[in-house]
Amino acid sequence: MTVKALEWAGDRLRMLDQRVLPLSETWIDLETHHQVAEAIRDMVVRGAPAIGVAAAYGMALAARNQADLKEAKDVLAASRPTAVNLFWALDRIAALPDSSFAAIEKEARAIELEDLQMNLSIGHHGNRLIPEKANILTVCNTGSLATAGHGTALGVIRSAFYEGKEVFVYSCETRPRMQGLRLTAYELAAEDIPFQSIADGAAASLMRAGKIDLVIAGADRIAANGDTANKIGTYSLAVLAKHHGIPFYIAAPSSTLDSSLASGDSIPIEERSADELCVVDGMRVAPLNCPVYNPAFDVTPGELITGIITEEGVFRAPYAFQRDATSQLTQ
Amino acid sequence: MTVKALEWAGDRLRMLDQRVLPLSETWIDLETHHQVAEAIRDMVVRGAPAIGVAAAYGMALAARNQADLKEAKDVLAASRPTAVNLFWALDRIAALPDSSFAAIEKEARAIELEDLQMNLSIGHHGNRLIPEKANILTVCNTGSLATAGHGTALGVIRSAFYEGKEVFVYSCETRPRMQGLRLTAYELAAEDIPFQSIADGAAASLMRAGKIDLVIAGADRIAANGDTANKIGTYSLAVLAKHHGIPFYIAAPSSTLDSSLASGDSIPIEERSADELCVVDGMRVAPLNCPVYNPAFDVTPGELITGIITEEGVFRAPYAFQRDATSQLTQ
Repeated sequence: MTVKALEWAGDRLRMLDQRVLPLSETWIDLETHHQVAEAIRDMVVRGAPAIGVAAAYGMALAARNQADLKEAKDVLAASRPTAVNLFWALDRIAALPDSSFAAIEKEARAIELEDLQMNLSIGHHGNRLIPEKANILTVCNTGSLATAGHGTALGVIRSAFYEGKEVFVYSCETRPRMQGLRLTAYELAAEDIPFQSIADGAAASLMRAGKIDLVIAGADRIAANGDTANKIGTYSLAVLAKHHGIPFYIAAPSSTLDSSLASGDSIPIEERSADELCVVDGMRVAPLNCPVYNPAFDVTPGELITGIITEEGVFRAPYAFQRDATSQLTQ
Repeated sequence: MTVKALEWAGDRLRMLDQRVLPLSETWIDLETHHQVAEAIRDMVVRGAPAIGVAAAYGMALAARNQADLKEAKDVLAASRPTAVNLFWALDRIAALPDSSFAAIEKEARAIELEDLQMNLSIGHHGNRLIPEKANILTVCNTGSLATAGHGTALGVIRSAFYEGKEVFVYSCETRPRMQGLRLTAYELAAEDIPFQSIADGAAASLMRAGKIDLVIAGADRIAANGDTANKIGTYSLAVLAKHHGIPFYIAAPSSTLDSSLASGDSIPIEERSADELCVVDGMRVAPLNCPVYNPAFDVTPGELITGIITEEGVFRAPYAFQRDATSQLTQ
């Protein structure tokens, strides 16, 4: 079974509604850039690379509907603040010399295909870091559902599994939205990759018991010094990994790198509604009006990251990312 | 509003059903020790000290019903494995020279009253560790609902608040059963103690942002060297606190101390069902048959614990607890 987040249908973008997975597989048809922006904001689709691809197709829909492209770009850019792939994809579309529907559609298709290719390369490079037999801890969902396919951190795990390595995944459920328990479990079960889901709080005792060989997570934005914004709880895992002497890796396409930011301190961190914590599938679990602090992301300092796996290879601390004139990623 | 977990009614034990809090306040009447054991196992009541009190009243019900007291003790002892207060209370009842209903009922009342007194003393000693203005992180529920009243870790926070200190509580939701989000939020809101609930994964970034002055947690069993079993996720907070240079305290009555165990390695850790993670209020959130690892507790090594607050005072690492001939707790 191949899991897919998005499907471009020529005149509309079809999106698998990730809010109702794993028990219901519902596809939604989006015909305007406003609908795409809303779907990103409401997390019908999530995952930094998938958001970038969705936004590109949102621009294609704007062109198809003869909407104002500058306004469409602003609407899509306002959907979510932290993942940089969104802005990267929108800038790439805006930089096209030809703003016809055909040209934008072609570029969106290219962005999607390149993301899949990048993920396969990330998997290839990352696989070399995975022992023949490995217990791997991961967080959130960084698989096919978060990307154009294969995945970033989960893509590395997939590549190792397809290479015949004996991998076992411990998947943090990832509160509040439970992307681990809902989506990663769904993807792993679909491909018979052995795993167990755990409460986020159980990661530390697994590490203490010697049951984790490495941690691998995705990224929503990486600053020039390697500071990495990712799903809330990632920084916690990085500190725990350091305490237990366990390697901690980030896997992400180079489109996640924002070398305009010197450090993670300037990455905007989205705060989401209290209901994400307090209401599960429509059922309220907290007292009414329970005050909540609900940041969607945290920032892991580069010095806690053993390696950053991109499609261009594995980078090691200390990080000092920049792009040279040929757009090659260097440090 | 005074929150209470248990109420002895002379011929039955009334229990507030904590599984349906905070939205429903349902009291259950228990008339046999079997019903009490089942209520402990199903977590109608939870929290190490409250479990001890409930078990004592379970023995009173057994005596009232002229049941075999040795068998009743075994049934109650088999309800949950980790919290030592359960065994402590049962041993105390078994050691009575008189096993009449009247004598056991009197001892159960004494255990309940002493627990309340111990918690007030814990609050008194713990309060001296709380600055005039403090942001305090806590986990699970360690308040009136977990004890005979006032609470252990939450009791310290209560005492500081009643003393007029400017406390702000960050309450970890505590997956899988969400005792923080359901119960601690309920108790804090009831007394207008300022707080925010957070996902367990958000604790680390609050620490990094300098927003946590100290961490305080309860305990289900403490070994002679200070190793402490408590709700899953507690060890994670202890490691994070150490990394960020934040004091980490345990608050518990001396009945939680098991000086027969040299270290935490021999504390039995209960594993509970996958459904605790996968099903929230009857709604399934994970794929069907999702494999899960669900330990209810973890063990925090004594060396990560800045101080252990008991009714007899605050003990500091290195811990070497023992009881002298007068039952005085020493180290």
